[in-house]
Amino acid sequence: MSSKVRLYLDQPLAGGQTLALDAEAANYLFAVMRLRPGAQVVVFNGRDGEWLTEVSAAGRRDGALAVRAQVRPQTTVPDLWLLFAPLKKARTDFVVEKAVELGVGRILPVVTDFTNAERMNRDRLQAHAREASEQCGALGVPQVAPLRPLFAVLSEWDAGRPLWFCDEALAGQGPAPAGDRPAGSCAGAVLVGPEGGFSAAERARLRALPFARPIALGPRILRAETAAVAALVLWQATCGDWR
Amino acid sequence: MSSKVRLYLDQPLAGGQTLALDAEAANYLFAVMRLRPGAQVVVFNGRDGEWLTEVSAAGRRDGALAVRAQVRPQTTVPDLWLLFAPLKKARTDFVVEKAVELGVGRILPVVTDFTNAERMNRDRLQAHAREASEQCGALGVPQVAPLRPLFAVLSEWDAGRPLWFCDEALAGQGPAPAGDRPAGSCAGAVLVGPEGGFSAAERARLRALPFARPIALGPRILRAETAAVAALVLWQATCGDWR
Repeated sequence: MSSKVRLYLDQPLAGGQTLALDAEAANYLFAVMRLRPGAQVVVFNGRDGEWLTEVSAAGRRDGALAVRAQVRPQTTVPDLWLLFAPLKKARTDFVVEKAVELGVGRILPVVTDFTNAERMNRDRLQAHAREASEQCGALGVPQVAPLRPLFAVLSEWDAGRPLWFCDEALAGQGPAPAGDRPAGSCAGAVLVGPEGGFSAAERARLRALPFARPIALGPRILRAETAAVAALVLWQATCGDWR
Repeated sequence: MSSKVRLYLDQPLAGGQTLALDAEAANYLFAVMRLRPGAQVVVFNGRDGEWLTEVSAAGRRDGALAVRAQVRPQTTVPDLWLLFAPLKKARTDFVVEKAVELGVGRILPVVTDFTNAERMNRDRLQAHAREASEQCGALGVPQVAPLRPLFAVLSEWDAGRPLWFCDEALAGQGPAPAGDRPAGSCAGAVLVGPEGGFSAAERARLRALPFARPIALGPRILRAETAAVAALVLWQATCGDWR
């Protein structure tokens, strides 16, 4: 892994360009990371691949990067979404960070019957997703959607996107998720409930949805964030880009 | 999931017994959890299953539990070990917690060429493993071994225990781990390197070991603790008790 600073910039990227930096980017590169003119920075925007740039101007509130050469072309990522009920702050941050590393394209926080956190700072989570993308070498940043009630999201669901929901009521039973997994699908989503799981009413409604299928995650009770990671890993290994 | 307090006790468990509590357990149950005589506590010892007990005496430095009935018999767990290079404190704690949830039987911290943390508080990690077992409903507590050099541990390795090592040099390449997985094995181990991965010399030595096989974990760079969870999930789903 490169030790160069990696930066997400929402600007078109192409060779020969000069990229203007806003105050936030300038503060990060020049005050926090202490880069000076001539230093190399790797940038990506989620559309044009990854580019090597060089600091051409470094100010307190602005600066510029000269685009040198493309390092990696943009690649397509699996069309995988994560729906999860917000947890305590550190565990929510963890879920977002791991979702980015595991190639989730869209993060949808949802309110369920047993969700404890009714509020969520979406801007903070979006910034956390961006930092995780910069760190893990991803070529895009997943969008964090506004917090909405679970069944409001599911009422508008595209039935072509299978939804795996982690059903703790299956703990201790077979079958393993393998038997339940659709083969060869290219769009998908994983739904993880809060620490207390889903209510009986929610579970009944979920089971009645044609695009939803319960998955089992072994005989032990997993914490919500562990279930999220486990389900995403299994999805990537069977339907995604870990195959 | 029961909301009763769950406690690991290293004492034989059988119906009709009275269990004496030491100062640590008494402090936890009566000062921290504020239980009073008559309160129910679920206990396990890693050998005799899970038992319902009732507080029969509650002191400041001691106390007693009357064993009522067995809740669950002891079950066998997959014979899965985790070898990992200690990370920063919070991430090491995380790895231990997730290893417990994912059914690891033995946790072996190892020093590798790029390991940053040369010291490790084994007692603290063992206590963390115990708390994680109490929380996740496990019927045993994995042992945390002393920190040792990786190849000292591997020089005494039982060749009948396949070792999957997470090889970040495979990131971006196939094949997915599925193709590499031994089928039907009942003993196994997962090895995860530190944030910087394995050195070239280590990778060469690992690849030369007949019981070791590299596994790939998708095209993105995973943080060490994410790689640990991902590899354990894949092992449980293919060789362990998630099948």
